[in-house]
Amino acid sequence: MFQNFDDVGGPAHGAERLRLLRMELDRAGLTGFLVPRADEFQNEYVPADAERLLWLTGFSGSWGTAAVLMDKAALVIDGRYTLQAAAQVDPAAFEVVNVADKSVSGWLEVNLRVGDRLGYDPRLHTVAQVEALAKCVEKAGAQLVAVEANPLAAIWTDPPAPAQHPIALQPIAFAGIEAADKIAEIQDRLAREKIGAVVISALDSIAWLFNIRGQDLPHTPFVLSYAIVPVEGKALLFVDGRKLTPDVREALSAVAEIAEPTALLDSVRAFGSRKAKVQIDPAAVSQWYLNHLVDSGAVIVREPDPCVLPKARKNRAEIAGSRAAHLRDGVAVSRFISWLDSSAPAGNLDEIAVATRLEKFRRESPELREISFDTIAGSGPNGAIVHYRPTRSTSRRIEPGSLLLIDSGGQYADGTTDITRTLAIGEPTPDMRRHFTLVLQGHIAIATARFPKGTRGNHLDALARRALWSAGLDYDHGTGHGVGSFLSVHEGPQNIARRESVELEPGMILSNEPGFYRTGEYGIRIENLILVTEPAEIPGGDRPMMGFETLTLAPFDRRLIDTALLSSAEIAWIDAYHAEVLAKLAPGLDAETLAWLRDATAPLAR
Amino acid sequence: MFQNFDDVGGPAHGAERLRLLRMELDRAGLTGFLVPRADEFQNEYVPADAERLLWLTGFSGSWGTAAVLMDKAALVIDGRYTLQAAAQVDPAAFEVVNVADKSVSGWLEVNLRVGDRLGYDPRLHTVAQVEALAKCVEKAGAQLVAVEANPLAAIWTDPPAPAQHPIALQPIAFAGIEAADKIAEIQDRLAREKIGAVVISALDSIAWLFNIRGQDLPHTPFVLSYAIVPVEGKALLFVDGRKLTPDVREALSAVAEIAEPTALLDSVRAFGSRKAKVQIDPAAVSQWYLNHLVDSGAVIVREPDPCVLPKARKNRAEIAGSRAAHLRDGVAVSRFISWLDSSAPAGNLDEIAVATRLEKFRRESPELREISFDTIAGSGPNGAIVHYRPTRSTSRRIEPGSLLLIDSGGQYADGTTDITRTLAIGEPTPDMRRHFTLVLQGHIAIATARFPKGTRGNHLDALARRALWSAGLDYDHGTGHGVGSFLSVHEGPQNIARRESVELEPGMILSNEPGFYRTGEYGIRIENLILVTEPAEIPGGDRPMMGFETLTLAPFDRRLIDTALLSSAEIAWIDAYHAEVLAKLAPGLDAETLAWLRDATAPLAR
Repeated sequence: MFQNFDDVGGPAHGAERLRLLRMELDRAGLTGFLVPRADEFQNEYVPADAERLLWLTGFSGSWGTAAVLMDKAALVIDGRYTLQAAAQVDPAAFEVVNVADKSVSGWLEVNLRVGDRLGYDPRLHTVAQVEALAKCVEKAGAQLVAVEANPLAAIWTDPPAPAQHPIALQPIAFAGIEAADKIAEIQDRLAREKIGAVVISALDSIAWLFNIRGQDLPHTPFVLSYAIVPVEGKALLFVDGRKLTPDVREALSAVAEIAEPTALLDSVRAFGSRKAKVQIDPAAVSQWYLNHLVDSGAVIVREPDPCVLPKARKNRAEIAGSRAAHLRDGVAVSRFISWLDSSAPAGNLDEIAVATRLEKFRRESPELREISFDTIAGSGPNGAIVHYRPTRSTSRRIEPGSLLLIDSGGQYADGTTDITRTLAIGEPTPDMRRHFTLVLQGHIAIATARFPKGTRGNHLDALARRALWSAGLDYDHGTGHGVGSFLSVHEGPQNIARRESVELEPGMILSNEPGFYRTGEYGIRIENLILVTEPAEIPGGDRPMMGFETLTLAPFDRRLIDTALLSSAEIAWIDAYHAEVLAKLAPGLDAETLAWLRDATAPLAR
Repeated sequence: MFQNFDDVGGPAHGAERLRLLRMELDRAGLTGFLVPRADEFQNEYVPADAERLLWLTGFSGSWGTAAVLMDKAALVIDGRYTLQAAAQVDPAAFEVVNVADKSVSGWLEVNLRVGDRLGYDPRLHTVAQVEALAKCVEKAGAQLVAVEANPLAAIWTDPPAPAQHPIALQPIAFAGIEAADKIAEIQDRLAREKIGAVVISALDSIAWLFNIRGQDLPHTPFVLSYAIVPVEGKALLFVDGRKLTPDVREALSAVAEIAEPTALLDSVRAFGSRKAKVQIDPAAVSQWYLNHLVDSGAVIVREPDPCVLPKARKNRAEIAGSRAAHLRDGVAVSRFISWLDSSAPAGNLDEIAVATRLEKFRRESPELREISFDTIAGSGPNGAIVHYRPTRSTSRRIEPGSLLLIDSGGQYADGTTDITRTLAIGEPTPDMRRHFTLVLQGHIAIATARFPKGTRGNHLDALARRALWSAGLDYDHGTGHGVGSFLSVHEGPQNIARRESVELEPGMILSNEPGFYRTGEYGIRIENLILVTEPAEIPGGDRPMMGFETLTLAPFDRRLIDTALLSSAEIAWIDAYHAEVLAKLAPGLDAETLAWLRDATAPLAR
């Protein structure tokens, strides 16, 4: 769990490994191959033995694809990773392409030759991705070839051994709904729609559906596994049996036929030989399933993963768990900020020291299982790098007169947290205060929004940006993402962003995190998690309105708030939030931190 | 042009005409037929001889479709028309269906029988509509049959004769770009994309492309015509030659081959016999074109109508024209409100009287060509009916203690206007003032918004609703629609609404019209037209931002503004807007109206 601050990746091995891969392709009768930064499950985090893109190219970002042809190769990344890719990748081996300029398909269309045979591992690409790829490959007069064995396996001879951690049951007190009931609801729908089975391939869906949690991935309590829910009988769960204690095996056996992952192929093909109608989510399920289902005779029904929406709408137990987790997390974060306020002036801290100390405060809570992600501790100019995480080579000193942006979270047994605070080290400049206050106005606009049924996140996004826009400023990321319940800290389908998304519904948890970034100087982000509330009548109104309950409990840095820019309603909201933070956290705090928190949450001078 | 206040439609003839239609269907070997409220051009307004739905059903709304089978028939309408359809349609003949409950396709899926032959007139349905229909008809095991001759033509023996008004050229001073240049730009694109021709079927696109205006339709200066732009040579324009004066014919001949509409079919098929690639917009072009193009051998390229975006981005001449039109319109509206303020207290006015008087003030301007639409003058409870227009049977007296909602516009030679004001007749109640002020806050939020490149109307819509939402209130229509340049008062593709739409671009004109409706009591709407401005630097900012310039010039009713609910910035905006209204309109006003306007635009008490 401890965050590791190692520098990873780098250009040293790219050319040699690319040479080995091309020899391997030649042997396999291929003229090209795709290496996505993806495992079989399309997770944000992948296990170390699935970090094929990093191994091949030296690039350690969380999004990218290498397209390798015999005489050239490209690494397609997004704008977040421009600088990182330039530092990590050998330009003589890989052309680095920004996806905004050219997508993988776009690059292939230009560079494929007639007759080329472009290989891909069907386990690592979704059905939707392969469809898009197939079109462009066809246009170029080339052929897209699904491989049975990934050629990287032949040359990456020493991948780390997969972890072997036991699987835990998520207690009903936290899960809220029994796995049997979740499965029954899916089976009811399958029966109504006359569908024989549904493939569940997203790991957060599997963990949610069976109420299980694992330790197979960094920061995210998924279990590496596969599942199929047939319309009748038990669900099928394919998982390494060595991870099952007798108790867990017994509990799971009540709802699932448990088998080893090696049995998946036969099981998938058995649905086909029965000519079953099988449902898959083309955006989540890999082409490997589609190929074997179609090949064995199944009829494919394309529908979204049936777990996604019920998982997003948190039930009462999950909401109670999130509130409890946020109490604990607020205590840890308050102790941290209090400690920082007294320690930073001496000038001996760096980013790694503060991230480590924050993790230490969180770990004092016995319910903590993991951190939600590598803490982003961005001092001064590092705060302006949106996807920064400190490493030994980048860690900056925490200097007086700077801002520290710290974005972190905890995976507690009962809920996942994600919080960003921006803290003044010493005396902030007027610009820092103005920018912080504009961001805070956007944060408050989301926190206080009321909205009717049918409202989507893309309708609300501008509320968070309005104050910044009026000042000629903006930020290049979404305002909010969904958050799981002791699951992924980035969970769909809901969000608050420009792109169209699903309707917001009561029980959904999202982040509220507008920001502002001044390159080379500082970054500001203010993030709380918020819960969509039930529609409620408003006195004098004629339509019930939903709204947000703020879950996160930790003070904003009062030194960065310029009250002259705020309306009295905005000031009142901050004061009320701070009063709530104090009241709720006080019982869990030591005397020293409590004294600090009283000052930190005092009403603003007007 | 004068608005007519006749009651139209009604249930008297529905059953008999339905009987006649079924006999005709039987003769043609059909078991059903679709009658949309549409002409060949998919206009909002259709010529009187194309009002087939009204003739058949008695329903006079602007949106609806009759689905006629041998033993049952439905009229599918939308929520705006529930009450109107109930009053106008014989329920023994037609089941009235709200599209929110069941679409035409949905109704057909349930009611079609295997083997049914459902006829439709391919001129009256777009390609996209027919594709959706075909799917559901197929599902039901029935057949969709395109008819050559509309069976209604055989039974509607006395349709009004089509109008014969001369076509006018839109002067370059108002159009801004010569037709030759517009056509050349389209041809350049066709050449680049190796397309042989593009069908332009939307009448506003044709009027814009050739810089022509007509009087063939109520309120909208379109010319009933057809056009095809080939990649080389002159454009083809099919229009009734009797509408062309020698001068206009000569001017048009410089850029177009002019032919009679009867020549269209051969011309369309000639592109096919040359195996040309022909571009059509499936959302705008009728199935008739597709059938004949495909049948004769053309290759179809589906792309949006190439006129739509350049038409939406007004050029400098069009913007200057709009400003000039709004000056004139502001004078007329101010004279009207001044007159109303002095005349209404006597209690002798009704809705028709005020709509007629407003039209009279507009007609005093020699540049007025038409009104933009039938004036909505909604007194008291009628104001709460969003798509109300007064008729002799509905016109209410303008009573003290009520609100009057008046939504109207003028078609001037240089621009189209659209303005809504809500006026207090006598002393308003506290609720009226509160609701008006909440709506005004939404209006101001749009008027003052700044936003970056890439922002779409659906991102801004919530800004207009935020104050209402916080009070538990909302309105069931979009916040803004695009507006043409002496063209349609409802013009796409831009809008400000929930549904996703195109990016806002400088030069686009939209309405800004939030509202609030209390059924049975009153309606409130505040509408100005706004122009998207060029991105501009903001002091202290780092990104240029677009914004809106308000074009409409007329005071808001100060008696309805509760300043206690407003921020000082909102009050300052109203005062500045009123000062601008006074300064710009004063030179055009008589002494009496000017004195009134000084009072009406006086700064608000704080």
